[in-house]
Amino acid sequence: MVTLVTGGAGFVGSHLVDCLIETGQKVRIFDNFSSGRLSFLSHHGDSVEIIEGDLLDIDSVKNAMIEVDIVYHLAANPDIRLGTEITDTDLKQGTVATYNVLEAMRVAGVSKIAFASSSVVYGEAKIMPTPENYGPLFPISLYGASKLGSEALITSWVGTFGLQAWIFRFANIVGARGTHGVIFDFIHKLHRDKSSLEVLGNGRQEKSYMEVIDCAKAMIHVVENTSEQINCYNLGTKDTCSVRRIAEIVLEETKCEDADIQYTGGDRGWAGDVPKSMLDPQRLFDIGFEPMYSSEDAIRHTARCLVNEIGQP
Amino acid sequence: MVTLVTGGAGFVGSHLVDCLIETGQKVRIFDNFSSGRLSFLSHHGDSVEIIEGDLLDIDSVKNAMIEVDIVYHLAANPDIRLGTEITDTDLKQGTVATYNVLEAMRVAGVSKIAFASSSVVYGEAKIMPTPENYGPLFPISLYGASKLGSEALITSWVGTFGLQAWIFRFANIVGARGTHGVIFDFIHKLHRDKSSLEVLGNGRQEKSYMEVIDCAKAMIHVVENTSEQINCYNLGTKDTCSVRRIAEIVLEETKCEDADIQYTGGDRGWAGDVPKSMLDPQRLFDIGFEPMYSSEDAIRHTARCLVNEIGQP
Repeated sequence: MVTLVTGGAGFVGSHLVDCLIETGQKVRIFDNFSSGRLSFLSHHGDSVEIIEGDLLDIDSVKNAMIEVDIVYHLAANPDIRLGTEITDTDLKQGTVATYNVLEAMRVAGVSKIAFASSSVVYGEAKIMPTPENYGPLFPISLYGASKLGSEALITSWVGTFGLQAWIFRFANIVGARGTHGVIFDFIHKLHRDKSSLEVLGNGRQEKSYMEVIDCAKAMIHVVENTSEQINCYNLGTKDTCSVRRIAEIVLEETKCEDADIQYTGGDRGWAGDVPKSMLDPQRLFDIGFEPMYSSEDAIRHTARCLVNEIGQP
Repeated sequence: MVTLVTGGAGFVGSHLVDCLIETGQKVRIFDNFSSGRLSFLSHHGDSVEIIEGDLLDIDSVKNAMIEVDIVYHLAANPDIRLGTEITDTDLKQGTVATYNVLEAMRVAGVSKIAFASSSVVYGEAKIMPTPENYGPLFPISLYGASKLGSEALITSWVGTFGLQAWIFRFANIVGARGTHGVIFDFIHKLHRDKSSLEVLGNGRQEKSYMEVIDCAKAMIHVVENTSEQINCYNLGTKDTCSVRRIAEIVLEETKCEDADIQYTGGDRGWAGDVPKSMLDPQRLFDIGFEPMYSSEDAIRHTARCLVNEIGQP
């Protein structure tokens, strides 16, 4: 039997593939390589089967389901901010793509899906740390809407067609091979000008971060250790890190301590940005998983990895 | 300024149009007449502007937004059960259609939307009566998924583009002009054979019902009396009615008391049917709205209206 990973050449996907291969699973990835990279998988040689395809082409998705036991569905538009420019990106790359995955699974008789959802489904939650049964769910970004729309499709497939599902609500995932996000952006900005660093918002935005290998291992751990029809878990750490602190850490790790930090102001980085999010990962801890890195440690580790990948400014 | 009602020729939509006209609003409806009927609006003559169009054609939707102040977005696939046969009906007629409405509003600068969502977003809720802040939201029907996906798009438009939104989670809405649903089905079944009545499931399914004019008036009342950016309200009664009781009432009102009731068995009518739902409508009551009809009264009133429309079996 085969484990299929959509978005398997991407940032989280490629780390998940590493962990799945380690546990001895036969892995197939499906990726359109819009942000994924072959180089993230090249160390596996022929032991990972690679399908280049578009999830919006349902026939390709159906063809990818042969002998599949479980689908890890990670493919999505990776950049939350894009939603404000082209408003149907998240709808198509998120919700409609998830529909195609589910429909292809139904036709092929594949019955297990693990889905990379996000803490942004909670919107501006009034309870923090936010548990999985928090309501109401009012996401404020188009990316968040596409994740909640996808979750809803998945639970409806469970209720209507008997699927079994794992829904993972990710904290902000950071680590090596990052292709977007705040740390990645900061390092690139310093490459352009190492004397100053522009920070979107007032820097007081504060979120839970999780290191990407912790995230990949957590997914596999939850799938192996839970058996409800719907298994919904926050994947995150017990702490948070502010954008101000991230900027300081990046300046230390890039040896640009003398750069001026320039805040653009306002309580959020962009329209649809959640100023503060803190996940409650207790359910994950309760089934025996503890992340290696705290939020701040994950940030520092990531800054080091990305400086190594991108180069010292 | 114009009030636009999508699905305005439909069951709930045409009653809403009646109530909007009563309050003196200038009304335009947008309907593809797949289940809506011109005859539901004909008593208004020229005082309702009618656009026949498809919400999946975004240019038509954009054209319908001229001078619009608020959109009541009611259009959807009306039949929950269809989702199990053609799996993309609800995705398209629900979530994608809602995206088109929102995008057309954004382009035209229309800033207020009232949306007909549903109690089915709660899935098989563990808390009853179920309040608006219930979580997790795991809808079990494809129809429910399309409603939650639409809600999420709407809240993301609020968070990203500054829209103001009213989200109405409907109980089962019943009344005159019904074109589907359990009472409608029962009467049609008795027309085919008045000696027996087949009931899907064991008859113990139990849900909140609301009379359609109560529902239409409640929507207008909430829009007029609330002013948050997101205003989410359950629209329902404080009680429930079982399918078994509905069957008895329909047999009484059709004068078919001698018919045998045949239960198909099982705890639900079809895959994706929620066996029990009971909404908590306290927030609606708290802002001064009380429905005229209880669940059982609404059922009896509807049976009378539909027997009148369809004819005595």
